[in-house]
Amino acid sequence: MYRPQNLRIPGPTFVPQAVLSASARPLINHRGPEFAALLAGMTRALQDFLRTRGDVFLLTASGSGAMEAAVANTLSSGDKVVVFVNGAFGERFHQILRAYGVDARRVEVPWGRAVDPDVVRDDLARERGKDGSKAVFVTHNETSTGVLNPLKEIAAVVRESGKLLVVDSVSGAGAVDLDVDDWGIDVLVTAAQKAWGAPPGVSMITMSERAWKAFDRSNLPKAYFNLQTYKAQLEKGATPATPAVTVYIALQESLRLMAEEGLDSIVKRHRDLAFATRRGLQALNLAIFADEAFASPTCTAFRMPTRLDSRNLIRVLREEHDTIIAGGQGRLEGQIARVGHMGFVTIQDMLSFFSALELTLRGFNQPVEQGVAISAALRAYAEATQPPARTPVASRR
Amino acid sequence: MYRPQNLRIPGPTFVPQAVLSASARPLINHRGPEFAALLAGMTRALQDFLRTRGDVFLLTASGSGAMEAAVANTLSSGDKVVVFVNGAFGERFHQILRAYGVDARRVEVPWGRAVDPDVVRDDLARERGKDGSKAVFVTHNETSTGVLNPLKEIAAVVRESGKLLVVDSVSGAGAVDLDVDDWGIDVLVTAAQKAWGAPPGVSMITMSERAWKAFDRSNLPKAYFNLQTYKAQLEKGATPATPAVTVYIALQESLRLMAEEGLDSIVKRHRDLAFATRRGLQALNLAIFADEAFASPTCTAFRMPTRLDSRNLIRVLREEHDTIIAGGQGRLEGQIARVGHMGFVTIQDMLSFFSALELTLRGFNQPVEQGVAISAALRAYAEATQPPARTPVASRR
Repeated sequence: MYRPQNLRIPGPTFVPQAVLSASARPLINHRGPEFAALLAGMTRALQDFLRTRGDVFLLTASGSGAMEAAVANTLSSGDKVVVFVNGAFGERFHQILRAYGVDARRVEVPWGRAVDPDVVRDDLARERGKDGSKAVFVTHNETSTGVLNPLKEIAAVVRESGKLLVVDSVSGAGAVDLDVDDWGIDVLVTAAQKAWGAPPGVSMITMSERAWKAFDRSNLPKAYFNLQTYKAQLEKGATPATPAVTVYIALQESLRLMAEEGLDSIVKRHRDLAFATRRGLQALNLAIFADEAFASPTCTAFRMPTRLDSRNLIRVLREEHDTIIAGGQGRLEGQIARVGHMGFVTIQDMLSFFSALELTLRGFNQPVEQGVAISAALRAYAEATQPPARTPVASRR
Repeated sequence: MYRPQNLRIPGPTFVPQAVLSASARPLINHRGPEFAALLAGMTRALQDFLRTRGDVFLLTASGSGAMEAAVANTLSSGDKVVVFVNGAFGERFHQILRAYGVDARRVEVPWGRAVDPDVVRDDLARERGKDGSKAVFVTHNETSTGVLNPLKEIAAVVRESGKLLVVDSVSGAGAVDLDVDDWGIDVLVTAAQKAWGAPPGVSMITMSERAWKAFDRSNLPKAYFNLQTYKAQLEKGATPATPAVTVYIALQESLRLMAEEGLDSIVKRHRDLAFATRRGLQALNLAIFADEAFASPTCTAFRMPTRLDSRNLIRVLREEHDTIIAGGQGRLEGQIARVGHMGFVTIQDMLSFFSALELTLRGFNQPVEQGVAISAALRAYAEATQPPARTPVASRR
């Protein structure tokens, strides 16, 4: 029986057939001229999307590997750093830092809330005069809670302090406003299977000139993730170790499709679809977990109705409606569900999600008037994307 | 213009369309039941192929990443180890060990020669009574020179010494005789794009009980490559970080095709095709770089005729005949060429390679009677695969 899945976890996300088919082309030599051209073109495209003239490297590893590369290439054993943690991925940064013997001070922010730039300023100000921390680690888009931290403002504060700024934008970059050079981000990591709409296996990392200076002083062990070897090989059109060629080729096709749409349109589409998603959920009386002002454009976390465990909701969505969403991580397990809307996502995908959600809630004896969420989401989407029609017009295009 | 390539580098190797197409299926949830079943099945299949009841983990990284995992999960800073180096991949192990601050003593073996088990025995014997090394690092199949080290005999010597045995079998496992448990190999790494005939991006690593004991004492930093987190997640049917799902699915299909053929047949096929390849090259008066007794079943390195730089040969093979082979690495650049015959390779693929090679050599004004290498390779293959026909028979099948 043909049962297409609606994959709506916060990454890996839906990958267009054109991208998948590109990845199924016959293998090529990863040290030949064809790959060199591909790598050069992808690097330029990523520099454009991330708005940087600095280095961008493609690693054969998932986003966590790139996060580790960010640590190992900039720090030394015993270095002091600050990590702002408002979700599971901030915790992951902290774990990696601890695994490497870095003295990582953790600043807790309630889950579902954003990291407040004033909190960052006050925190860093208290360090003045002391043997302060060398770098600040921040999560841009926290998929565990559906929060987008105000990175531009945080970056401005960190720049004032003169510390290195390392950003996990694994699930943000490519879908949200971001300007690596203008905002002064020293190291930023992202991953192919998130907003870039490609299969997993490749992650990307930027390095500013300040980050390279930190590299020169860094003594943490690095081999597979040594970015200096990436830089030396990139100049020859290659990678230090065998790259995940088929995933690179898929990502190349994703980048091509994204360039066609244009980054501004992509950012607006994500914002509009996230808005529509929140209105649809609210029409079902499902509370959004995040502060609305900092709600993520790529992932929405929502609370359950009383006496419904999100694991059961997720199971029925999958088993009966082929709709795949994610649950709460860590302390939020069972309490929230998370729906992804990143990459090549359309309003139709979200309406399909809502149709499954409405049917599922009905199955759990929740008082749901069928169609209410779909209608609310579509109304919100129309409101966000179309100016109100004042006079009848023959055609909008 | 349709110009199919004959990709004959020593990995990534040719990937069958069935495997590529499998990798182009719509993405699935890497934390759902479908992926859990896939991961469990692949782990069992790999245990069968590698002949181990110990742990096997699939990492989202190339073989060099798995080599790093082997180091980081078993050793501590300042530990003494011995590395036997008879090619570029032995050097890579040494580089990784040094990057991690391990006191790695390097035993040099001339490139093109095998690591002699007696040399290993004598070397380890000299350590007796002293503060000896904790582990021995060996390359199984050295693709930089086309040498297969006699791992079974080396392993027996290392077992006597009581030291940990860590093996890079990136380009050997899946194509050559190997019995991880019976031979007593503690850690072995291999990679999807080599003999397993899948795209690159996933590598595999085994851990014996002794290796886990070493893990418990190890203090090297590890996060992305921490195998304890892999073990904990595998029990839940998942991986610590997002896996390269499409490459996993490709590898699953490769493993299915390999199980159909059977490991004994696969090993014999590689041996026979390597033999045919050497005879074809010798018919062109191209000397095999490796000792014949230890010639690799997966990759053959051969010397150039006088006054021919292998880079030129390789360029013309690629530009005029769409045949892609590799050059010499490091000190052998320009001097040798390397042809891969691993994974889903047939005698027809090798005859196609020889047809291109014969035409190319002719173009370089080498005295080549066209057809001589093809005929020699085919004769050798027939000799290896078919008993001499003594009486006319109606049918061999």
